[in-house]
Amino acid sequence: MKNTNTLKELKELFNRNKDKALQDYFTFLRFKSISSEPDFKSQTLACAEWVANYLREIGFDIDLWQTPGYPTIFGNYDKAGPSQPTLLIYNHYDVQPVDPLDLWQTPPFEPNQRNGQIYARGAQDNKGQCFYVMLALKTLMQHYGKLPINIKLCIEGEEECGSAGLSEILKDKRDHLKADYLAIVDLGLPKPTTPALTLGIRGIVAMDFIITGTKSDIHSGSHGGLAYNPIHALTKVLAMLRDPSGKITIPGFYDDVVMLSPKERSAISLEFDAKAYEEAFGAKPTGGELEYSPLERNWMRPTLEINGISGGYGGDGFKTVIPSKAFAKISCRLVPKQDPQKIGQLVTQFLKSNTPEGVEAEVYIHPGSGKAMHTRPDSKAVKAFSEAYEEVFQAPCEFIYSGASIPIVTELSAASGSEVVLLGMGLPDDLIHAPNEHFGVDRIEKGFLVISRAIQILAK
Amino acid sequence: MKNTNTLKELKELFNRNKDKALQDYFTFLRFKSISSEPDFKSQTLACAEWVANYLREIGFDIDLWQTPGYPTIFGNYDKAGPSQPTLLIYNHYDVQPVDPLDLWQTPPFEPNQRNGQIYARGAQDNKGQCFYVMLALKTLMQHYGKLPINIKLCIEGEEECGSAGLSEILKDKRDHLKADYLAIVDLGLPKPTTPALTLGIRGIVAMDFIITGTKSDIHSGSHGGLAYNPIHALTKVLAMLRDPSGKITIPGFYDDVVMLSPKERSAISLEFDAKAYEEAFGAKPTGGELEYSPLERNWMRPTLEINGISGGYGGDGFKTVIPSKAFAKISCRLVPKQDPQKIGQLVTQFLKSNTPEGVEAEVYIHPGSGKAMHTRPDSKAVKAFSEAYEEVFQAPCEFIYSGASIPIVTELSAASGSEVVLLGMGLPDDLIHAPNEHFGVDRIEKGFLVISRAIQILAK
Repeated sequence: MKNTNTLKELKELFNRNKDKALQDYFTFLRFKSISSEPDFKSQTLACAEWVANYLREIGFDIDLWQTPGYPTIFGNYDKAGPSQPTLLIYNHYDVQPVDPLDLWQTPPFEPNQRNGQIYARGAQDNKGQCFYVMLALKTLMQHYGKLPINIKLCIEGEEECGSAGLSEILKDKRDHLKADYLAIVDLGLPKPTTPALTLGIRGIVAMDFIITGTKSDIHSGSHGGLAYNPIHALTKVLAMLRDPSGKITIPGFYDDVVMLSPKERSAISLEFDAKAYEEAFGAKPTGGELEYSPLERNWMRPTLEINGISGGYGGDGFKTVIPSKAFAKISCRLVPKQDPQKIGQLVTQFLKSNTPEGVEAEVYIHPGSGKAMHTRPDSKAVKAFSEAYEEVFQAPCEFIYSGASIPIVTELSAASGSEVVLLGMGLPDDLIHAPNEHFGVDRIEKGFLVISRAIQILAK
Repeated sequence: MKNTNTLKELKELFNRNKDKALQDYFTFLRFKSISSEPDFKSQTLACAEWVANYLREIGFDIDLWQTPGYPTIFGNYDKAGPSQPTLLIYNHYDVQPVDPLDLWQTPPFEPNQRNGQIYARGAQDNKGQCFYVMLALKTLMQHYGKLPINIKLCIEGEEECGSAGLSEILKDKRDHLKADYLAIVDLGLPKPTTPALTLGIRGIVAMDFIITGTKSDIHSGSHGGLAYNPIHALTKVLAMLRDPSGKITIPGFYDDVVMLSPKERSAISLEFDAKAYEEAFGAKPTGGELEYSPLERNWMRPTLEINGISGGYGGDGFKTVIPSKAFAKISCRLVPKQDPQKIGQLVTQFLKSNTPEGVEAEVYIHPGSGKAMHTRPDSKAVKAFSEAYEEVFQAPCEFIYSGASIPIVTELSAASGSEVVLLGMGLPDDLIHAPNEHFGVDRIEKGFLVISRAIQILAK
């Protein structure tokens, strides 16, 4: 079967099934599967059941692996037999919280199509990317009656809050997960027309920093000049975290950062379009360590970001209060060789030792930290997927890195004993984790095509 | 009529009417008259009507002065005739917001009595203090059939959000407000057993500081190292506002602060009980400019407090976001000769000029700023009230200052052409503006007695 004909056939299949596919995708998006917020528990569990049923109907053996948190959907298709390789595909069905809700143009759980884009929480991350995988498997099964290789699916429900549940059960599931290749379908492309595979992602460690002053909120007139305001203490400590050049000032923070390899050096030599960035996001890329190029800062350097800050009165008008507490949420993105626990401890020590007298500091390290991972560009999996990308996009596949993190990847790769390939159809301006997240119908199609073709290419 | 007998009689009257009085006080407290939050408009208006009716029933001529915001209740009793002086009494019927709601032991608008204290929003500030004034007027009228001096009442509904409405109409109401003395009943005592009048309050100017980075929230992995996080910019600028000794670093901030007078110097020589402060509030008094004593810092020095800070994710768990915006609410307390508008401009300029490149800064100065006011300790009004305090407490009256602000006082004093006396029954640990605000029934009684006796003493 010739590739061009196969691709043509797959495109026809996509178009024939498109209406029903979008219907199913919208159903998937309507589940409020916010894993970090306990109020959404029943919706998150219902979402897992829906995915499990979808895959069961295709012909997969489905198991809902129970964890201390949300279940992981494990799917297995082994009818290609032992002569064919096994591809394990990772996705997640949980999504990020939606606030600030008032900035969404349409409600986050009522998918809305505008100019070829689907707007919804999870439209891209990761329901959109999970859905084109499921659609590819369904279409191949329906049209050809079978899959050419063995496929395992691992679709978890706690990626957005640290993958603690899956991490907990991984060592008991080694036999089930065993595979030749592991495709992490949660990444993206630099531009809509540029096919690319991701060779590395950053690690992460996240924490809460809480400062307590008086035991209750107090009046800023009666107490101003007496009580040490915890917001002042908080801003003082947080402002010390970086120097004017953007370098993180925590002693030891960069100790384990290694020199770039030639492959990495070549990747960051890709052009970064600062003007396009400013147009897309409304601000110049002036964050991070200014002595490095933008791509090096985002892909190859560790960062520290304050993801949230809160204390005192935040409503309309004014309230003359000195709050009892103020807090910040901080996360560090890590590069290979940096250990999340060690970095967590260094940050904790820095925050505590710089907190002024008269207030109390606490630091809580969130579960779900993970190391950075860089993959081998010459592996069979990477080659098969890059071939699929080139066919679908009719352009040479580039190799990029990502500043983001998927903490479970290292553990999942070890448990399954497989070669990792990091891929996806995300674009930098999809607004994942933000209001008005969206994903293009064209990318649902391209994702469907790439997954389908890669499965065919991997067959012996 | 001998003072001791009169005091005894007033105490008997209080006790006889106590149950009904507490019932009325609780009714007053149940109105959710939060002036800064538009959702509470009907409750705030209903509260004004209730106060107006209470005073009408006593025998006052009542006018609800309409303003661009909430009405001011103006009450007039002129039957003592032109030979007697006129006392204008100021209170307010609006209250502070109640969040964080979960820290209240009982709901803020369901008054609850525990150990002789009434817990509710406004229990002290200012409904409690307003109520004992109304109760004194009612009791004197009912028992004696008349008041010995002329009384005017000015009870406004926007003190907690800047008194903009009353300020707006003041110049048209000069004739109505004309009085010999002006009693501002919104202050307090250093200790429950120490009678005291307040000789000065601080001024205030309040503002919002908003920093904007990208036009939407973005992902801290995909953008960490690229985008300049507005929370980092915010903490950087805010941390620059004071030096390690607690001094505000804004150029010109202290330029107009004048030397203390001997009276002021003597007031701040009062002992400050740092241990009692720590026991009451759970933290040492380590705020403000450390080179000055605690009382000087709170009474005689200007301060700058961050009353609120917000940006990014503040919920449970974690969200790896770089927010589009971060903001802080800032207020300065001012001392005599400092001009609120000038200080507002100095702070604005400092915040904007220190905001790093790559993000945008905005500063919005709230309406309702006001100058500090120091009163004459030898005025007739101060003397009459200090005599009343000494009778009721059976102890010498002290003269203190307050770190708080009542911005309308300067304007009201000018409009009414009257001698100001600042007084009240508040205590430092009443938790005004905070969860679990409370006020003692014993202080309702003492406030009732002081107001009643001062009215009698002022009669010629």
